[in-house]
Amino acid sequence: MTELGDNGGVGPRVLRVPEGDSRPRHTCPDCGFIHYRNPLIVVGSVCLAGDGRLLLCQRAIAPRVGYWTIPAGYMELEESTEDGARREAIEEANANINIEHLLAIYNIPHISQVQILYAARLTNDAVSPGPESQAVDLFEWEDMPWSNLAFPSVHWALTHHRQAVEAGDWTPRSAPAP
Amino acid sequence: MTELGDNGGVGPRVLRVPEGDSRPRHTCPDCGFIHYRNPLIVVGSVCLAGDGRLLLCQRAIAPRVGYWTIPAGYMELEESTEDGARREAIEEANANINIEHLLAIYNIPHISQVQILYAARLTNDAVSPGPESQAVDLFEWEDMPWSNLAFPSVHWALTHHRQAVEAGDWTPRSAPAP
Repeated sequence: MTELGDNGGVGPRVLRVPEGDSRPRHTCPDCGFIHYRNPLIVVGSVCLAGDGRLLLCQRAIAPRVGYWTIPAGYMELEESTEDGARREAIEEANANINIEHLLAIYNIPHISQVQILYAARLTNDAVSPGPESQAVDLFEWEDMPWSNLAFPSVHWALTHHRQAVEAGDWTPRSAPAP
Repeated sequence: MTELGDNGGVGPRVLRVPEGDSRPRHTCPDCGFIHYRNPLIVVGSVCLAGDGRLLLCQRAIAPRVGYWTIPAGYMELEESTEDGARREAIEEANANINIEHLLAIYNIPHISQVQILYAARLTNDAVSPGPESQAVDLFEWEDMPWSNLAFPSVHWALTHHRQAVEAGDWTPRSAPAP
């Protein structure tokens, strides 16, 4: 049993193996509540405009404020991965998309995250910043803000998307070896 | 704010929209702990033996005790989807597998579950029941226990695997429309 330093001394803050289980779980010593923690799913999409440009959003919220990302975020309860990707495109860029292919499953085990990303097309070019974006824009490949991307997976997704389009091969990609 | 009937009156049992959030979350009225709940990932595999038979496991634990399933289960923290599928094959059938293709992503939104299933090969036929299985066996297609499969997704996965093998087309499959 381990008392954890996080959580400010409230809630599930003790690591203990529950009866009938095999792994330590976060447990509340006050009320016995067991907080089973599981990997989180991020859903999103690389969005292609009719003229071949790609949609990026400049983040208005932490982490990585001011850096550029594809529309993506945590999947919510009671939605599908595709519905989540469509929701994120609307929330971050007021962008309506048609999903065409599964682009990639990126496992990032050290943060217990699985990113499920799609290749999509914008139904039209009328995009605008949602509340979580400072700006949104459509970029030619050569004009991408490569040195100001928010996360490594944004770089992977853009590169994998281009490879897939050029090869006509939509075998889902994985994260590069660390 | 909604007091929930579950949880036995302890832990995060009140539904409330936290400050800066847009959705109600399970909150503990005693200590303020917010329990963000997210979709759960199930990882598993359809496992092919050298002679073309497929591995199934007869469940020893609830739900669906006595019914047959492919090796699959909840993904754990700090593992990849592939590592999780390999772990489940070992835990349920003492089976060592080589993962060859992503077979399917099955969204089951009404239970907030995403199943990520692979096509794999057994490294050898020496399989045996792990603690969560009553029995394990290798089945010819014609001899599958079709009327005693544990879950609809087991039926989907076996069928999609056969279609993919026959067509040589490993485009990941989705759940059939409800």
